[in-house]
Amino acid sequence: MSALQNPKAPANLRAVDSLTVALGSRSYPIHIGPGLLRDPALYPSDAKQILIVSNEVVAPLYLQTVRAALGDRDVQTIILPDGERVKTLATFATILDRLVDARFHRDCCLLALGGGVVGDVTGYAAASFQRGVDFVQIPTTLLAQVDSSVGGKTAVNHPRAKNMIGAFHQPIAVLADTDALKSLPPRELAAGLAEVIKYGVIVDPDFFAWLERAMPKLRALDPDALAHAIRRSCEIKAGIVAEDEREQGKRALLNLGHTFGHALESLGNYERWLHGEAVALGIVLAARTSAAIGWIGAADCERLEALLESAGLPIAAEGVDPDRVLERMQLDKKADRRGLKLILIERLGRAVVVPAPERAVLKAVLAAASG
Amino acid sequence: MSALQNPKAPANLRAVDSLTVALGSRSYPIHIGPGLLRDPALYPSDAKQILIVSNEVVAPLYLQTVRAALGDRDVQTIILPDGERVKTLATFATILDRLVDARFHRDCCLLALGGGVVGDVTGYAAASFQRGVDFVQIPTTLLAQVDSSVGGKTAVNHPRAKNMIGAFHQPIAVLADTDALKSLPPRELAAGLAEVIKYGVIVDPDFFAWLERAMPKLRALDPDALAHAIRRSCEIKAGIVAEDEREQGKRALLNLGHTFGHALESLGNYERWLHGEAVALGIVLAARTSAAIGWIGAADCERLEALLESAGLPIAAEGVDPDRVLERMQLDKKADRRGLKLILIERLGRAVVVPAPERAVLKAVLAAASG
Repeated sequence: MSALQNPKAPANLRAVDSLTVALGSRSYPIHIGPGLLRDPALYPSDAKQILIVSNEVVAPLYLQTVRAALGDRDVQTIILPDGERVKTLATFATILDRLVDARFHRDCCLLALGGGVVGDVTGYAAASFQRGVDFVQIPTTLLAQVDSSVGGKTAVNHPRAKNMIGAFHQPIAVLADTDALKSLPPRELAAGLAEVIKYGVIVDPDFFAWLERAMPKLRALDPDALAHAIRRSCEIKAGIVAEDEREQGKRALLNLGHTFGHALESLGNYERWLHGEAVALGIVLAARTSAAIGWIGAADCERLEALLESAGLPIAAEGVDPDRVLERMQLDKKADRRGLKLILIERLGRAVVVPAPERAVLKAVLAAASG
Repeated sequence: MSALQNPKAPANLRAVDSLTVALGSRSYPIHIGPGLLRDPALYPSDAKQILIVSNEVVAPLYLQTVRAALGDRDVQTIILPDGERVKTLATFATILDRLVDARFHRDCCLLALGGGVVGDVTGYAAASFQRGVDFVQIPTTLLAQVDSSVGGKTAVNHPRAKNMIGAFHQPIAVLADTDALKSLPPRELAAGLAEVIKYGVIVDPDFFAWLERAMPKLRALDPDALAHAIRRSCEIKAGIVAEDEREQGKRALLNLGHTFGHALESLGNYERWLHGEAVALGIVLAARTSAAIGWIGAADCERLEALLESAGLPIAAEGVDPDRVLERMQLDKKADRRGLKLILIERLGRAVVVPAPERAVLKAVLAAASG
């Protein structure tokens, strides 16, 4: 986890809890804590042209704070509608139009101020404008702070498949301001906790056990508990990304629950479930599939479901057609000509990537969870 | 120039003149010579899903040959209209639609069969589909064989700026079949020669002198002369790209003539001049600017213009408004907040990147060349 700081990353002039995503010359800091948005020292100091991309929910809360911290630079803003539906090539094109119209140069910087949708589409625009310019992630949801803002995956959705068009493009810094979570609706907080729980399940049994104890504090927005959960989540993700930036191997573990989850999200038209809720359902399905093939026992399966439920997450997908879920899963990026792969659970704290079990097993698991 | 071959690159089972672009795990071969298109051994052996992107001029000539060499795989084809006007986000989206509709997986491969436009848009689609899949460049113009197919720059045009949206994404192989040049209109052959001459000007005075002698043979499509010109051009480009893949330094030399050239192309609506013709004009303007600030002498300037003319290239841009050219140049990717940079010529065989001279100098040079 140690590495040279990216020379273009902002100087850090006060005590902020920071960790580094170690990727050689593309290493960057993740700053975690309260009050970060208003700290001028945390923003890139050398970019004179800045485009802030945010949305109609987040901008009224935080845009002025960010603008004030940026001082008198050439700052453009784009305010998108809220929701997954703006994560399209059309929005991507809108961002690029603005960059061209405002005559932005290669040494500009984009700031993504919002949740995962804003971060993903802004990051992909930064990856593509002039074949790649700087960007900073300023995640304002728990889900974005612990997952999508870290690791450099950027994308937009294709009308028929999620995250199908994108790039690997690392930010130059991530500002995870815990104060931003105070304005987060409880349902979105829970959605972020699904990814936090995921980290415990895939690699860290102690963190999983800590989450079982700390869940009431987390749901009550206890600042110390939140900061620990975010930091440990980012540490685990940063460590995995540093080992396997382009998902040739270990990084796939981060997709626990996502193959099932993406299929459910898509069948629900990205409206029925939030992404984190779909991931929670996906984790339940992965756990039950693991139990069905004799990996984890029923007790661990129940313990995991209890933790997800205590976080305010769904653990059953009523009324879903198992065949339609399986059909969507075949289109998942984890499928190749050798067939679909899944991340399954050997024990709480250890997940592995394996070829999917036979269709009948998956169908039975889906039928039980949708009945 | 030596490096491990990309393990995914096709096995090379017969004597083909090949060189390697040395980029570590992303190294790849450039094969040069006659009859390559029909050689099954030169295509990637492990991709079962293949999308060939070509255009309405090239496909009738070579598509069946390529399909026959691919055998019984799942081969999709997209035939684009001819010309720079298809190098758009809309065409990019069309390619991605097909990949999703045909349920292509991560281990698919795209083949770009055509000139620079086909290669650039296909490469950008390959860079973006599922955040990056394999592609092979099969350039059928001299310009694409010596320049755009090598080095991993992919892009589409923005309506108001060329190559503004793209990615660095290296192909897994380049097949430069010299037989394909037999069907090339003389004007397009000349356009390719502009880039060949460029390599001599920027780094290789011996190659420049060889081109002065060999130009009649090249224009008569002498196979040995063509193979040497392509090989030496690709060697120079591959060497520069291996040193500086993402254009932080030396790679910028490859843009000699391109800042002027892009501005002229854009003012001519991409119709008046072919890209290589605009580059030839740009080289003339760069040479005259270099002479105006006392770098190269009038004799070398004339020698360069004579070589370009003997290749069948324009050396004057009649009727162009110098102010409009300068305005377009300011939007060029080589401009940043410290101002516009140009590649100027110290002597034939040595170019350097420098801040642009003052506007009055550029305007006088442009006025002289457009009068």
